[in-house]
Amino acid sequence: MVYECIEVTYSDTFATLTLNNPKRRNALSLKCMQEVTAALREIGDSSARGVILAANGPAFSAGHDFADMAGADLDFMRKLLKTCTIMMDTIQEIPQPVLARVHAIATAAGCQLVATCDLAVASTEASFATPGGKGGWFCTTPMVALSRNIGRKRALEMLLTGDPIDAQTAYEWGLVNRVVPPEKLEEESLRLLGAATRGSFFSKEMGKQAYYAQIEMPQPLAYSYAIEVMAAASQTPDAQEGMQAFLEKRKPRFQERS
Amino acid sequence: MVYECIEVTYSDTFATLTLNNPKRRNALSLKCMQEVTAALREIGDSSARGVILAANGPAFSAGHDFADMAGADLDFMRKLLKTCTIMMDTIQEIPQPVLARVHAIATAAGCQLVATCDLAVASTEASFATPGGKGGWFCTTPMVALSRNIGRKRALEMLLTGDPIDAQTAYEWGLVNRVVPPEKLEEESLRLLGAATRGSFFSKEMGKQAYYAQIEMPQPLAYSYAIEVMAAASQTPDAQEGMQAFLEKRKPRFQERS
Amino acid sequence: MVYECIEVTYSDTFATLTLNNPKRRNALSLKCMQEVTAALREIGDSSARGVILAANGPAFSAGHDFADMAGADLDFMRKLLKTCTIMMDTIQEIPQPVLARVHAIATAAGCQLVATCDLAVASTEASFATPGGKGGWFCTTPMVALSRNIGRKRALEMLLTGDPIDAQTAYEWGLVNRVVPPEKLEEESLRLLGAATRGSFFSKEMGKQAYYAQIEMPQPLAYSYAIEVMAAASQTPDAQEGMQAFLEKRKPRFQERS
Repeated sequence: MVYECIEVTYSDTFATLTLNNPKRRNALSLKCMQEVTAALREIGDSSARGVILAANGPAFSAGHDFADMAGADLDFMRKLLKTCTIMMDTIQEIPQPVLARVHAIATAAGCQLVATCDLAVASTEASFATPGGKGGWFCTTPMVALSRNIGRKRALEMLLTGDPIDAQTAYEWGLVNRVVPPEKLEEESLRLLGAATRGSFFSKEMGKQAYYAQIEMPQPLAYSYAIEVMAAASQTPDAQEGMQAFLEKRKPRFQERS
Repeated sequence: MVYECIEVTYSDTFATLTLNNPKRRNALSLKCMQEVTAALREIGDSSARGVILAANGPAFSAGHDFADMAGADLDFMRKLLKTCTIMMDTIQEIPQPVLARVHAIATAAGCQLVATCDLAVASTEASFATPGGKGGWFCTTPMVALSRNIGRKRALEMLLTGDPIDAQTAYEWGLVNRVVPPEKLEEESLRLLGAATRGSFFSKEMGKQAYYAQIEMPQPLAYSYAIEVMAAASQTPDAQEGMQAFLEKRKPRFQERS
Repeated sequence: MVYECIEVTYSDTFATLTLNNPKRRNALSLKCMQEVTAALREIGDSSARGVILAANGPAFSAGHDFADMAGADLDFMRKLLKTCTIMMDTIQEIPQPVLARVHAIATAAGCQLVATCDLAVASTEASFATPGGKGGWFCTTPMVALSRNIGRKRALEMLLTGDPIDAQTAYEWGLVNRVVPPEKLEEESLRLLGAATRGSFFSKEMGKQAYYAQIEMPQPLAYSYAIEVMAAASQTPDAQEGMQAFLEKRKPRFQERS
């Protein structure tokens, strides 16, 4: 597919989805979000083992575009936010781990993208903000993702003040997995995604899906569910091969994704 | 209104509610809690843009007063704890951000007050404890707020041991937003509350309410809800003014609260 | 009772349950898990005031035993995982605080044991991993406990990479309460469990049970529940004695467990 706002490239193992509208600071227009969702679904069906979500230009993403929204009616706004939520959900629904590679400031729905990804590596030059509350609006949908990543006082501080936090603070609060100097960002992102995707593709797919399902459940239901998923997974060729290889002290040979 | 246990003062922008029964270490008697709730409601209807919850004397608050409770029957105890819960709920229900300015030790329901506020700034001389479990009882209702602010192992440590944690630990665990030397406490509290209340009053009101609503929901419901709140909020004069002002590179003029 | 895989000893105040199958790195076979559950129930009915969960040998526990599981059918796997979940639930159901004393690596269901305990003290030589995702399977049931102890990005990093985190990282993420040099591990475990179990046995029992009940509830229900538990607890002899002793500035005398 040909995209206007993004680029999608494939290496031997990973797909990279790059927000590529630097002049608009990768603002998430309706068009752009539809492209991200379509690209994620395309990648989801591909043989890629993992996904890097990156961006070009001076910002990772500035979130929604005020030029789209000023004067827009309720109907358009509902459509825009529903489209955004579908994009966020798709990140968590595709089988591959998705890692946000954050080189610069990520604000509002841009910050929400980072909070929504399975993993995130940030440059020391990155920062994170939900600035809606600074103006006349509020980062209400970004809040859903942000407040499931960091504690209450910290989430409310970001949401009410709208002030950015730096990459080190984001690491300490658990919003990102790593902070590295800019020149190490690509290498560390590949290293972490490599670690997160080695082994059996099928087991990671089941595991990622189960993570997001069980985290919404009370603990007793989560266990009832997890027992069934894990017992069923034990019967797959990859689980059996993994255990046999371990016992025979040899390297396992897992199934390829067709 | 005239209060016995508390003081309420208004500056140009903020209301300050000060627990003022230093001889009893600001113990939360039935009377005192009814006054705090009444004062919060009064402030909620005022033109104040934010609230500082402070205290006078050697303790921030020692929680419930054993002199009230020793020998009390079940009926009184249920009334006392229900009154306390209404006070806590009111902090999260009023439209303004409420910041706890904690200069000294906060224990039991006093610690719960800090956990319940939207934001908190602590002096290096502050500390936090839920000491019920040290004696013959247990900080059961404080636990509800505390365990929604900090992780499981840390909450159980505080609840089971009853031992205090210092302000720096409270910061690292996410119970407070800032730790500053005593002489900076007032200034930093005003600075953070100032940042948390600038911009449109109406947008903060909607945002604070939405935060506490969505955090109780599974993620898919939280998004369904947040989309509607944010789309509706986009149609308000303040949201439109915020976006227009941004696009026209001018300072926005938000509505005043009548 | 005589156990094959574990040892249970009683001091004046505490019971110690030691995983004692060092040659198999304390793998959690069906037999072993049934023994742990039986021993926990025995301890639960004893006069012990607290429980230390420890282990002998080069590993704290390696989790399930691949020798048990390779080639096993769905029926056996469901039984194994259900037995494991019953063991985990029993840790949280018995009245006494349970502290994991972790001297070495804890992986998969071994890591889940640590996440499930009320408290944990780790040696600087300990480490923690959920390596299922490294092979052909996934640590699906350990995930339930782990993801209720640490944040989303951190949980997904451990689950997807399978790489171990060291004791200091486990402390910073909230998975353990303390990190100490190996030679201080026993002393610090006793000290923390001592602090967590002083005072009234009955109040701790009610408090521990209420913690795990209320943490599953939305906040308004949690308060409704906690008010009733705390009000009822106020009527117990130990709560009344605790308050009276405080007011009379004397040492309280709490009920002994019969």
